[in-house]
Amino acid sequence: MLVDDYLQNMRDRDWEQLGSGTLRFALVGLGWWTREQAIPAIESAAFCEATVAVSDSQEKAADVMAKTDRLETTITYEEFVNGEAAEEYDAVYICTPNARHLPYAAAAADHGKAILCEKPIEATQERATELVTTTQDVPLMVAYRMQTDPQVRRMRELIAEGAIGDPVVVHGHMGQQLLDTVSESPDQWRLDPELSGYGATVMDLGIYPLNTARFVLNADPVSVTAQMHSENEAFQDVPDQHAAFTIQFDDGTYAACTASQNAYRSGQLRIVGTEGELRLEPTFLGESPQRLTLRSFDGRTAEIDDGRRDVFGDEMTEEFDYFADRVLRDEPLGPDGEHALVDMRTLAAIYEAAETGHEIAIQ
Amino acid sequence: MLVDDYLQNMRDRDWEQLGSGTLRFALVGLGWWTREQAIPAIESAAFCEATVAVSDSQEKAADVMAKTDRLETTITYEEFVNGEAAEEYDAVYICTPNARHLPYAAAAADHGKAILCEKPIEATQERATELVTTTQDVPLMVAYRMQTDPQVRRMRELIAEGAIGDPVVVHGHMGQQLLDTVSESPDQWRLDPELSGYGATVMDLGIYPLNTARFVLNADPVSVTAQMHSENEAFQDVPDQHAAFTIQFDDGTYAACTASQNAYRSGQLRIVGTEGELRLEPTFLGESPQRLTLRSFDGRTAEIDDGRRDVFGDEMTEEFDYFADRVLRDEPLGPDGEHALVDMRTLAAIYEAAETGHEIAIQ
Repeated sequence: MLVDDYLQNMRDRDWEQLGSGTLRFALVGLGWWTREQAIPAIESAAFCEATVAVSDSQEKAADVMAKTDRLETTITYEEFVNGEAAEEYDAVYICTPNARHLPYAAAAADHGKAILCEKPIEATQERATELVTTTQDVPLMVAYRMQTDPQVRRMRELIAEGAIGDPVVVHGHMGQQLLDTVSESPDQWRLDPELSGYGATVMDLGIYPLNTARFVLNADPVSVTAQMHSENEAFQDVPDQHAAFTIQFDDGTYAACTASQNAYRSGQLRIVGTEGELRLEPTFLGESPQRLTLRSFDGRTAEIDDGRRDVFGDEMTEEFDYFADRVLRDEPLGPDGEHALVDMRTLAAIYEAAETGHEIAIQ
Repeated sequence: MLVDDYLQNMRDRDWEQLGSGTLRFALVGLGWWTREQAIPAIESAAFCEATVAVSDSQEKAADVMAKTDRLETTITYEEFVNGEAAEEYDAVYICTPNARHLPYAAAAADHGKAILCEKPIEATQERATELVTTTQDVPLMVAYRMQTDPQVRRMRELIAEGAIGDPVVVHGHMGQQLLDTVSESPDQWRLDPELSGYGATVMDLGIYPLNTARFVLNADPVSVTAQMHSENEAFQDVPDQHAAFTIQFDDGTYAACTASQNAYRSGQLRIVGTEGELRLEPTFLGESPQRLTLRSFDGRTAEIDDGRRDVFGDEMTEEFDYFADRVLRDEPLGPDGEHALVDMRTLAAIYEAAETGHEIAIQ
């Protein structure tokens, strides 16, 4: 039986081919995500180590150096751009404000380094396109961690194999209390359109249901509608303290999504098909146990907790090792820049739809 | 503790004031819902009995008469309009195709009878308005059974009391396989715009998340966006085999909703606030156990199965007895015609939004 097979092999690395090897990373940006999530994930990874840290904050650099086994070099952004310590790393992990991805990705490409860049790939469509063009001679992957989450990979396989019939609708939500979550003022960059791009919430949170729906459906958006508004003073420069949007995909499926930076911490993803439904909940925010539930046409319900209790850490370790597996073997990898550009076009369309009140086609 | 209080009293009739009494119903329309759901609900009700059946089908009339204790008179629609057997009933339950509600409601008002009319109240805004105007001298309630579901009533109270902080987003979905569900050809009227109105799916199913969200939020829609399409031949005359829509409410909350008449049987309602979330699942389709889950800011989760195993039957019994309680005591009742007209304006706006690709304000 399909479900039981998946249950047994839920956490297998369906992508791993590398026998051994190590990819050395320069960490570009030392915000809380790098320090709290990426570094522990790299330390848990089989094929990765962090050797260089890039930051203009001596305090953060010293903290990271003290806590990270193999990391012995810290440099400033300017030194990084100038190629200092380039012989000490093979790849970069870029985790800066969105509008800083382009210059550091371009520098990494100049130095001939593979790039793992956080999502969204940049602040605007134009800058994202420039990033992809500028880095075309090196491997580029965008850090959509849900795509290396084993349960999400099983959802995609189950859907492809017809476990829920033809997909009909998707529901996705991601919400958190940004102002409570973020304890350090530099992270308030999400509220600054110069650094975040089109907005604070759909760019940062709405992208999760959008991209994960694309991945599990194996389909791309064709048009969107959206509503959004900000009410608190902290959100006055961005249009989307709270947002709702619909997406029509090229297979006819609709997604109904919401995102909020001022809501109870909660995430869900649900796919309803003609013959069943798949639900992943809670999700997106690292909560555990993350349960995958399949209800199928015969009334049978299978609920799968795969045992992980550090979901963020596991997703990130999988992501780093997958990236290393592909880069070290010199094989194509994804989600790549072209994949990320589809999200950027969709994000731009969502903000345009909300601003104009018109359904917007994805070009 | 709030949650435990609700758990203890989950099924209390917070509305009941009548000591005794009986409201005699004429059943107008004997489709499967009347026969399979409404009649058993009336037989279980404390204050109701079905005494007259109205149908042009002698077969259905005979079937109903044989199965229903107090029911001794069956008449045709023409006889009903002409006032035959009017002394044998005090109220009518109208469960015909949408575009037949107006003439039978008008006839009931002519005969001075109270009206319980199925949702949506009529096929179009214009006809709905005419129905409300025409029946203004008699009690009129629209049969939104979710509003007398005890768990839904507790959701409304919990939200009003701040159990999830300020509501931020709602997710609602209702889907079924119409063509499998409906075994008798007359029920295919939902695919005929002359009888159903604007469409087959949002009118029949999407109205559940719409109206239930209004009820639990105690808020009304101000604007909508929508996407919909039909692909199968059976749905060629209606625009909405599948649909997705967003609603902004007057308290700022967004609802992201989907509905499909060609999907796995599934329904869910979720309200996420600033400090918690409430989930009712499965819901809308009578599945049991229908579980109400509250997650609150302290991380506590309370999941409540109130023990009901005939959810449709219980909702309908509650609805009939509530209606009787109010009519027999000559007290105001709801959801009334004005309440239903807000839904009709919203439904019309959802179809217009999908057709034009524009966000539509609710007038």
